[in-house]
Amino acid sequence: MKVVFIGAGNLATRLAIEMSRKEFTILQIYSRTESSARMLAELVQATATINLQDLDREADLYIFSLKDLALGDILRQMPPTKGIWVHTAGSIPLSVFENLHRHCGVIYPFQTFSKQREVDFQVIPFFIEADNRETQEALQRICSALSEKVYPMSSEKRKYIHLSGVFACNFVNHLYSISENILKEHDIPFDIVLPLIDETANKIHRMPASQAQTGPAIRYDRNVIDKHLQLLGSEPLKAIYELLSKSIHETNQ
Amino acid sequence: MKVVFIGAGNLATRLAIEMSRKEFTILQIYSRTESSARMLAELVQATATINLQDLDREADLYIFSLKDLALGDILRQMPPTKGIWVHTAGSIPLSVFENLHRHCGVIYPFQTFSKQREVDFQVIPFFIEADNRETQEALQRICSALSEKVYPMSSEKRKYIHLSGVFACNFVNHLYSISENILKEHDIPFDIVLPLIDETANKIHRMPASQAQTGPAIRYDRNVIDKHLQLLGSEPLKAIYELLSKSIHETNQ
Repeated sequence: MKVVFIGAGNLATRLAIEMSRKEFTILQIYSRTESSARMLAELVQATATINLQDLDREADLYIFSLKDLALGDILRQMPPTKGIWVHTAGSIPLSVFENLHRHCGVIYPFQTFSKQREVDFQVIPFFIEADNRETQEALQRICSALSEKVYPMSSEKRKYIHLSGVFACNFVNHLYSISENILKEHDIPFDIVLPLIDETANKIHRMPASQAQTGPAIRYDRNVIDKHLQLLGSEPLKAIYELLSKSIHETNQ
Repeated sequence: MKVVFIGAGNLATRLAIEMSRKEFTILQIYSRTESSARMLAELVQATATINLQDLDREADLYIFSLKDLALGDILRQMPPTKGIWVHTAGSIPLSVFENLHRHCGVIYPFQTFSKQREVDFQVIPFFIEADNRETQEALQRICSALSEKVYPMSSEKRKYIHLSGVFACNFVNHLYSISENILKEHDIPFDIVLPLIDETANKIHRMPASQAQTGPAIRYDRNVIDKHLQLLGSEPLKAIYELLSKSIHETNQ
């Protein structure tokens, strides 16, 4: 199966590399940024282009993996092709393809991707959607070559999955970052907090989050909370601390 | 070595159970709540009491594991004993024992504990502090029987360790809880988010949080951010989303 990637960001990079290791041939990488297109193309032995009119028209699958705002523009500039068009965005409905292309769909691998980091695709849930049964079946076959967990999912529900991931991953990572900075400022190595991070993640496999909750906010230990607010110098951090503590307290009353 | 616990909460429960499996004899559990004292006492084959005046005076070690606000009161009501007194609180300085007892210290196991959940003590960092060298050495020996990672740490630095843990664990767990609720409201099973949670935690072992950051806030994809704010019905969740997105954006500019 011949594949063209439109976009060369984190997700496109990891997905293209993974597909190139399986039964897929990556023909071409398009990116507005020439260096990004070239870098990924080299990794998967494809050609690179920065011009949509130069896209290979003979691919079976075109994967659009772009910033949400860019997708509409790019789709309207696309030359006609026969192959299936899919995007990989959690929050964009299937209807973005309406009146532009038939045989279209969505492949949404629910994971955090960084260009340099290998991930185990087998465990990643892939949420798929298509405009007709034939395309749906094709996407099911394609994704099943990459992961054991492929599920049909509507655009309506997929956006809530994306939202839940922002809390469970993007915001969580930012809290790790705040934790890291607090320790760094006091010359304490960050790795002392890793067993705590691991146990917090492991715990949630075994019990509901409400039951796993510990710490001063759930005890509503105002004494500790006030001390911590004093230790946090800067205003945004104080506001985050206060808001999350209040939310923990209110949720668990 | 004979040990008395004052307090029977999450930390006391797991620590007492772990110590009872090693070379320690747990003599007695004190708690203001009789059922808590009895429950833990039964698990570690100790006696239970709700009266401080009934405390066994012959123990080598008294471990105070209480809500921060309760500790001062309890210490002032303690009968005199010979053994070492330690507390287990991240944010309370060693000086809480001043003029009350000599041979005192702090044992701070940096982990999240729930009564029902086993944890691997060997990997937990124990931060210790004492009022004299002899006690310090005793605490070093005691904690080394439980963990491979025992570090001396001042009260001043320990409070920042505690603060970093609130972000990396307590607040993280609350974000898991929000994620769980979003999925539950849309009849999507929570376990689809577990691979993402695991990868987010694993990633932080290998790269700085700033480098691991992904998602709409770091791209400052206003389109997605605004959609997500609309999906979040309730005000506290909107405020949390907005504040964390802004903080991610500002930190990573």
